[in-house]
Amino acid sequence: MIIILMGVSGCGKTTIGRQLALEQGLPFFDADDFHPKANIKKMKNNLALSDSDRLPWLNTLAEKIFEWENNEGAVLACSALKESYRTILASRHSNILWVFLSGTFEVISERLRKRTSHYMKDTLLQSQFDTLEVPKYGLYVNIENSIDDIIKRISSKLKQMNQSVFGIIGLGVMGKSLSLNMAEKGFNVSVYNRADNGEAQVVSDFLEDNHALKNISGFTELQQFVASLATPRKILIMIKAGKAIDIVIDQLIPFLTKGDIIIDGGNSHYKDTAKRVDYLASKELHFVGCGISGGEEGARKGPSMMPGGSRESYQSIAPILEAISAKDKTGKPCCTYIGPESAGHFVKMIHNGMEYAEMQLLAEVYAIMKISMENEKIAEILSEWRSTDLSSYLLEITIDIFLKKEGNQYVLDSILDAAGNKGTGSWSSKAALDLGSVNNMMSSAVFARYLSSFKQIRQSLSSQLKKDSEAIEEPDIMALKNAYRFARIINHHQGFELLRLASIEYHWKLNLSEIARIWTNGCIIRSDFMDQSVEIFKVYENYFEHQSIFKNLISSENSVKDCVSYSLKYRIPFDTFFASYNYWVSITTENLSANLIQAQRDYFGAHTYQKRDDVSGRYYHTNWLEK
Amino acid sequence: MIIILMGVSGCGKTTIGRQLALEQGLPFFDADDFHPKANIKKMKNNLALSDSDRLPWLNTLAEKIFEWENNEGAVLACSALKESYRTILASRHSNILWVFLSGTFEVISERLRKRTSHYMKDTLLQSQFDTLEVPKYGLYVNIENSIDDIIKRISSKLKQMNQSVFGIIGLGVMGKSLSLNMAEKGFNVSVYNRADNGEAQVVSDFLEDNHALKNISGFTELQQFVASLATPRKILIMIKAGKAIDIVIDQLIPFLTKGDIIIDGGNSHYKDTAKRVDYLASKELHFVGCGISGGEEGARKGPSMMPGGSRESYQSIAPILEAISAKDKTGKPCCTYIGPESAGHFVKMIHNGMEYAEMQLLAEVYAIMKISMENEKIAEILSEWRSTDLSSYLLEITIDIFLKKEGNQYVLDSILDAAGNKGTGSWSSKAALDLGSVNNMMSSAVFARYLSSFKQIRQSLSSQLKKDSEAIEEPDIMALKNAYRFARIINHHQGFELLRLASIEYHWKLNLSEIARIWTNGCIIRSDFMDQSVEIFKVYENYFEHQSIFKNLISSENSVKDCVSYSLKYRIPFDTFFASYNYWVSITTENLSANLIQAQRDYFGAHTYQKRDDVSGRYYHTNWLEK
Repeated sequence: MIIILMGVSGCGKTTIGRQLALEQGLPFFDADDFHPKANIKKMKNNLALSDSDRLPWLNTLAEKIFEWENNEGAVLACSALKESYRTILASRHSNILWVFLSGTFEVISERLRKRTSHYMKDTLLQSQFDTLEVPKYGLYVNIENSIDDIIKRISSKLKQMNQSVFGIIGLGVMGKSLSLNMAEKGFNVSVYNRADNGEAQVVSDFLEDNHALKNISGFTELQQFVASLATPRKILIMIKAGKAIDIVIDQLIPFLTKGDIIIDGGNSHYKDTAKRVDYLASKELHFVGCGISGGEEGARKGPSMMPGGSRESYQSIAPILEAISAKDKTGKPCCTYIGPESAGHFVKMIHNGMEYAEMQLLAEVYAIMKISMENEKIAEILSEWRSTDLSSYLLEITIDIFLKKEGNQYVLDSILDAAGNKGTGSWSSKAALDLGSVNNMMSSAVFARYLSSFKQIRQSLSSQLKKDSEAIEEPDIMALKNAYRFARIINHHQGFELLRLASIEYHWKLNLSEIARIWTNGCIIRSDFMDQSVEIFKVYENYFEHQSIFKNLISSENSVKDCVSYSLKYRIPFDTFFASYNYWVSITTENLSANLIQAQRDYFGAHTYQKRDDVSGRYYHTNWLEK
Repeated sequence: MIIILMGVSGCGKTTIGRQLALEQGLPFFDADDFHPKANIKKMKNNLALSDSDRLPWLNTLAEKIFEWENNEGAVLACSALKESYRTILASRHSNILWVFLSGTFEVISERLRKRTSHYMKDTLLQSQFDTLEVPKYGLYVNIENSIDDIIKRISSKLKQMNQSVFGIIGLGVMGKSLSLNMAEKGFNVSVYNRADNGEAQVVSDFLEDNHALKNISGFTELQQFVASLATPRKILIMIKAGKAIDIVIDQLIPFLTKGDIIIDGGNSHYKDTAKRVDYLASKELHFVGCGISGGEEGARKGPSMMPGGSRESYQSIAPILEAISAKDKTGKPCCTYIGPESAGHFVKMIHNGMEYAEMQLLAEVYAIMKISMENEKIAEILSEWRSTDLSSYLLEITIDIFLKKEGNQYVLDSILDAAGNKGTGSWSSKAALDLGSVNNMMSSAVFARYLSSFKQIRQSLSSQLKKDSEAIEEPDIMALKNAYRFARIINHHQGFELLRLASIEYHWKLNLSEIARIWTNGCIIRSDFMDQSVEIFKVYENYFEHQSIFKNLISSENSVKDCVSYSLKYRIPFDTFFASYNYWVSITTENLSANLIQAQRDYFGAHTYQKRDDVSGRYYHTNWLEK
């Protein structure tokens, strides 16, 4: 830290500077001591220095400032009356606290007159006042205050400047990446990681690996970590979702003060988040459930961020979150206030549910193609798709995957077909069930992962089936492309419909267009179609209201049927495509056969039913056994 | 209540009887006062009465007993030395407390000697002792105790006899039916219903409607209701699941004592039940979550009952539950101890989830048939199915439904195709998601109900589609029958697999064969296939291990494909059949395309993957972007 005390002669730069340096344990320098000989000579002869005389001196000082900062810092007394001088001084380093010692002509003139060793004419003082360009930044101090008060004022400002604007708990992959992202954007960041359970070196290793970033402070003691944060404190927790979050919250609370903000950046269940919001509100603290998508790379370079909680807390954290988030095509941050309570984590959960289905659709496209095509060929076809409206991040990485070799072998071919899951797909499906929303694509994608995990059972059962050895015809790629577009639209429709229903149910006032917008970059399901969706949701409630999309679905129906038939013929699991088709057919069928279900329910449970022709909605009961 | 004090002359029948009658507020009668004139004459002449002399007298007394009981009851002193006499006395009414006043010959002889007004020779007393057949029932009282003690003893027994063995809270359809079922089986039952919210008359109306059943006592005050129950108290709550259950529990607790048992017979969520078990255990009370299936008719005539909780509490309630439950083909009750904690409600929930899918399969069979067939024809085909292994309760009522007319119109055709649901289908689907179990049939059945509820949207969207007017070919009924059998097997497989997984996860030790057995009668999903399942689960862990069932599935696959293709051709929603097929194909496919999902997850999230050829299960990570 470099503190430069500036102002006209006689404002007290040296006196205050020496004492401040003493208190801060920093060396003190007087700028006048760095003048080249020619300048000293001129000054001795009472000749005024020109700006060109000052240039080498200012450059020397800029070098010195850089040097001091790389040591322990310094306090410098330097009149620095003009903005142009200050610009040169700050040219090698920007982390300077400018302290402008301000006083009236009369006060300073009076002081100068009292000095024995340093006499100055009023005319010279007047010329300094004329030259002075008051800085529009830094700390202003009125020199009529006592020196002690002035020192206190500067010390307090310094303490504040040394505090971090943001704290991050948990240096896992995501925590590290977000810390670096933030520090690189110029924010002072404090990081904390526990030192037990073999994690003793996590913080020190992280600091060492990133020693170039001076604005990261590391801690293994929670109290010191919290003390290093400027208030209202903004603390992002990046640890595994679950009970650990509650434990950390309870460890933090004793050190926090009213208005502090805890942000949970993990994939916590939205119902847990809702409870935590209430719990912390009872302690006058804010809790923000913030979905973060983009994986490690996104966290490092710019994720899509979905913070929910009080609007007040969002305003406080927005400058930082928006700075580190990805940017959309217009340059706006892929971070927006999602809504109150647990809205942020809910929206992130649905993002993941949609991601499950998007991934499964690609896996099924692969399943259809792989029985008759090599990986290279599949990659070629998908590359063609990528050049169209079907382009997406997931399609992009899938093409990379098909082409990736280790030695002569495709990596993909070596991978065990047993997919893992971390809960959010299942949570989304359950939320849909709770809300009466039909999200059969995401649930079928979850089931497909579960089914993949029963590898041994599949091996055992499949061995009992006769294998056909008939010749395999290639699938109709154009139909498959249409079906893929169709299924993706239905997936997006189901996902956004679920958000719309949740918004109504929980009174969240979600802005679907804004949600689509922050999903256009940084996150896993970014795509051309998501780009389009931003505009669609400005006008329409759902995709089906958009005429050309709805017509596209109608005209793709036969392609979907063709692909389903192909999957039947060759016995290829195609569940999530089936789900998209099933949803589409039912939602566009006027009369379903659910009247039978109502009759059955009335028969065995007297649940009653409504009639087609009775618009009053009256309920009827039939005694079915009466002849 | 009729109390008969019996024993030889001089045992104290009259003395004790008079005092007891006074205390109980009942009239006292002496049997000797009811002799016909001929008998009185004989006795006056010291002639012994023959049994044929006694017959008219005993018959008169039996009539009187019936008469007294229909009034307020009575205390009767009557020697009733022989079992045959007692049989006649009890012939018109069985609710008699027999009190045998028992003493030795010496004691009674001594007492008789002291009586002034009632002298009897020892020889006569001896002949009474010779005649006496000590009853094998009733209350024995030793006359050497004080009269006060004897009266106390009898009063205490009377109090106990007047108490109900079972209490039922909530006189909705199910509560009423179960109360009547229980009362008819001879149990004393207390019923309670709140008297507020317009329910003032519920209890009195119920008692009036069923005045023939003397062993039902009604209450609108909870404390009196509880006081009417013999300990340990057995209280069945039959009210709407949810918070109301907790409220009633908290209202009950102050009146209960250690070891009392609260039974929740509604469709409570199993996680709520688990909490309640713990809560009541902390108060030394038992909580039994008891699933009850069978609707109103089942509750009245014999439901399938699924009680879970402590084994100790089951033993206490078993005699009553087993008596009122349905009986299986061998006459055993369709009620068994399911398992600890919330196992009962969990099993009932899965029953309902399976029921959802069974109903939806029939709705889809109907959907396939209805585009080319009349209701009569459909009923005819289903009737043929019913005569085969496909027979089930749901199929049976469905046939009735197809044939039911009001005037000239089929009732079914008038019913709105918007199906309701009460949550258990959705809960089952969510439980499956939680447990990593693939139950896509029940979830697709739930989604089908949700879709049916969007009637207006379906009408609006369908109007935008062009309707084909091509001629419709009838479906292949044999294929449909095979597909229906196939889908039902998969549904049962998924349901029982979910129970098996839950049993492992929660350490419930569920007996799948016993569960199938109690589902063979009384409940909604009873069927021929359920009958078969009882034996299957005695031997196999799941249906797929049963060779002929597995072969049947293999050989039915083409039928399923034919039906799916038919549904595609005519655009008929067929989701739950699709789900059965999808599950089957995936679970019998050795290599799925989930390796792509694992690659994607490793690409964007460094989630790592396992390799096909590495049986060690090691996890690998690839740097996918590295060229």
